[in-house]
Amino acid sequence: MYEKREAIKVSEAVARVMNYTKTGEKEYIDLAEAEGRYLAEDIVADHPIPPFDRSPLDGFAVRSKDTEKATSDNPVKLQVVETVGAGHVSSTSLEAGQAVRVMTGTIMPSSCDAIVMFELATERNEGDQTYIEIKRSFESGDYVSKKGEETKKGEVVVEAGTKITAGVIAVLATFGYSEVPVSKKPVIGIYATGTELLDVDEELQPGKIRNSNAYMIISQIRQSGGEPKYFGKLADDFDLCYEAVSESLTSVDALITTGGVSVGDFDFLPEIYTKLGANVLFNKIAMRPGSVTTVAEKDGQLLFGLSGNPSACFVGFELYVRPWMKTYLQSPKPYLQIVKGSLTADFPKPNPFTRFIRSKVEYDNGRIVASPVGMDKSQVVTSLAYTDALVAVPGGTRGYRSGDEVDILLLSSEGSKEPIKDFMKVREGSL
Amino acid sequence: MYEKREAIKVSEAVARVMNYTKTGEKEYIDLAEAEGRYLAEDIVADHPIPPFDRSPLDGFAVRSKDTEKATSDNPVKLQVVETVGAGHVSSTSLEAGQAVRVMTGTIMPSSCDAIVMFELATERNEGDQTYIEIKRSFESGDYVSKKGEETKKGEVVVEAGTKITAGVIAVLATFGYSEVPVSKKPVIGIYATGTELLDVDEELQPGKIRNSNAYMIISQIRQSGGEPKYFGKLADDFDLCYEAVSESLTSVDALITTGGVSVGDFDFLPEIYTKLGANVLFNKIAMRPGSVTTVAEKDGQLLFGLSGNPSACFVGFELYVRPWMKTYLQSPKPYLQIVKGSLTADFPKPNPFTRFIRSKVEYDNGRIVASPVGMDKSQVVTSLAYTDALVAVPGGTRGYRSGDEVDILLLSSEGSKEPIKDFMKVREGSL
Repeated sequence: MYEKREAIKVSEAVARVMNYTKTGEKEYIDLAEAEGRYLAEDIVADHPIPPFDRSPLDGFAVRSKDTEKATSDNPVKLQVVETVGAGHVSSTSLEAGQAVRVMTGTIMPSSCDAIVMFELATERNEGDQTYIEIKRSFESGDYVSKKGEETKKGEVVVEAGTKITAGVIAVLATFGYSEVPVSKKPVIGIYATGTELLDVDEELQPGKIRNSNAYMIISQIRQSGGEPKYFGKLADDFDLCYEAVSESLTSVDALITTGGVSVGDFDFLPEIYTKLGANVLFNKIAMRPGSVTTVAEKDGQLLFGLSGNPSACFVGFELYVRPWMKTYLQSPKPYLQIVKGSLTADFPKPNPFTRFIRSKVEYDNGRIVASPVGMDKSQVVTSLAYTDALVAVPGGTRGYRSGDEVDILLLSSEGSKEPIKDFMKVREGSL
Repeated sequence: MYEKREAIKVSEAVARVMNYTKTGEKEYIDLAEAEGRYLAEDIVADHPIPPFDRSPLDGFAVRSKDTEKATSDNPVKLQVVETVGAGHVSSTSLEAGQAVRVMTGTIMPSSCDAIVMFELATERNEGDQTYIEIKRSFESGDYVSKKGEETKKGEVVVEAGTKITAGVIAVLATFGYSEVPVSKKPVIGIYATGTELLDVDEELQPGKIRNSNAYMIISQIRQSGGEPKYFGKLADDFDLCYEAVSESLTSVDALITTGGVSVGDFDFLPEIYTKLGANVLFNKIAMRPGSVTTVAEKDGQLLFGLSGNPSACFVGFELYVRPWMKTYLQSPKPYLQIVKGSLTADFPKPNPFTRFIRSKVEYDNGRIVASPVGMDKSQVVTSLAYTDALVAVPGGTRGYRSGDEVDILLLSSEGSKEPIKDFMKVREGSL
């Protein structure tokens, strides 16, 4: 018989999931493997930058007082007594009227206090001696990069929870982090359920489709910083599914199932949650696609029951699994970032429930615009290939016109501190 | 002696590099390993989607003509003769007055032409027979997902050159691509030059700094879809550097060196290019940071001589190496995407040359804004940790005020078809 479920709001569903957040333990990994991981602690400067007074360019280190009276009519002549490259330390103690030729990055010779760049010095050899002529005066400190002028020792330079990018790696290398403290990846198990599912390399058969959700979810888990653990697919058989789900829970931080959460005769997940003694946080959300998305909790461990429809599955992951994973990784911005922007096309369909339209973001003269990427049936899989955002249109609206302002959820931005909100009907007059 | 070089425009430098593009060969890899790779050919639907007429929901498959006269006062009563789950095929040939209970995704029983969802049917058991009552009529095709309504067989569903994301993986799985045709990764060699460079795990020494560029570039290469091949660091010794560079060329598609391209006494790359017989495409660009960025070509193979300054090195990679790599991967959008947006802070420094300011992009009520992330000295490394865009301010401008419109180069967008342009002075009145 048909089971009536109570639909809750998207924001409420997210909040219920986020009651069960955990923080991953810290582990140390090699810097060369750190890309894409999340810092488990603040990165602190172990030395000032620059680490010593140094020349920022190729030129001559001089004593500024020697240049006091230099003008173009009366240039000052200095004797070049040494050439020092970056990585070497000058051995000379400079006397009046002397200069040291230095390269970019060279530590300042001890008795010098200004740098004259090559372009401002005329070089001349007299016998076996080299001299430069300088036609202007320099102040003490001119063109010297001072120790610590960029970063002081002990300063926090990158915060815990930051995703490690090329730029972060440069900072880690600079401060000697050959081993990097990162959060362990949350291990997320995956079962795809449904007798209709074929393996990807199988020939099509009547009534069957290939299993695309599992591979998609594996990729989404990796993109969100997790470690996918794919257990395989399950036919619609209660005992089989119960045993599989029950056993898998011991080896994962959270479990995703796809399919089996609706009200069909072979949708066994609700019964499985009951037999497990799991607490169902919700089993219906006032949203499309993915209204049947279900999340249950057993002893603090989450079981995400995503829809078997590819697009609903995709959206369910991004809205509910992702922020849980990002919090595990200590990200300060675990939620999807929501920005205002304009639609580039009409979306005439009325929206009894909040709808997430698969879209592609572009930029139009300083403004953000979003283009729906295909029909929005929840079965549609091909449009996912070009989706990088979800346009959220609130329930109770009759449709939208090209140019209307909408809320856009960015899938590949670093995220937001603020939890997802209720999407409100903002434009009574639309269509 | 000081060597005078001729500075060329950024757009001209990019164009000279792009005269030497190559396309990578195709290889097949396992679907599970495909994430982040680039498709080497168009992906074609090997079957229509849906692959058969099917039910998009849990309900009853009926013959529409049986429901012709149904109203709420005179409901039609149908006998439920079978229950079929997704993945199974109905064995029944329906007679008048009969219905089949079907689940989401089930192939349509042959004699049925409409679906009545659970909510619109009242189910009743009489003896060992089950009946449903329907209070409205249904048209042929109602609530049936028709074969091919989403995608026709033979349609191109994802184009060659597309980066493989979770959504693309879902499409590949659907169409049976257990082996995926991808472009081979370009192998990019890396040498970091400079006697001042310490390994990341070494203690600091006077005059020396840790080697951060190599690790940063390794990550940038990976992010752009390439395979980094790090050869190590080289002290400033001509013979050593010449041998190392010369030998490495046989095992890479292109070579990046960091450092050694300026006019200092130990900047040996210019001489190395000469001794190799390489053709120097340019050795000075009218830009900051990274004016000394040099690119040479030998027998069609590119040698990218990036600056040793971390930020200049970073920018040089993004502007010149990245589009070459993306073209190798057949990306239709190899260039950095440039969007208009506003500055969130004053940038008072005058700009004799085009300047790329390390920045972070945010969104403010539908508009793109960019915030500089720290002082813009080319040595500054810590600001790279938070850089996701470069604000390009044209040469010949005196400075910018908060709110001024600027060109923003997005580092993590999918890119642009259009090559980078000359950044023109747009606002005479600024500051």
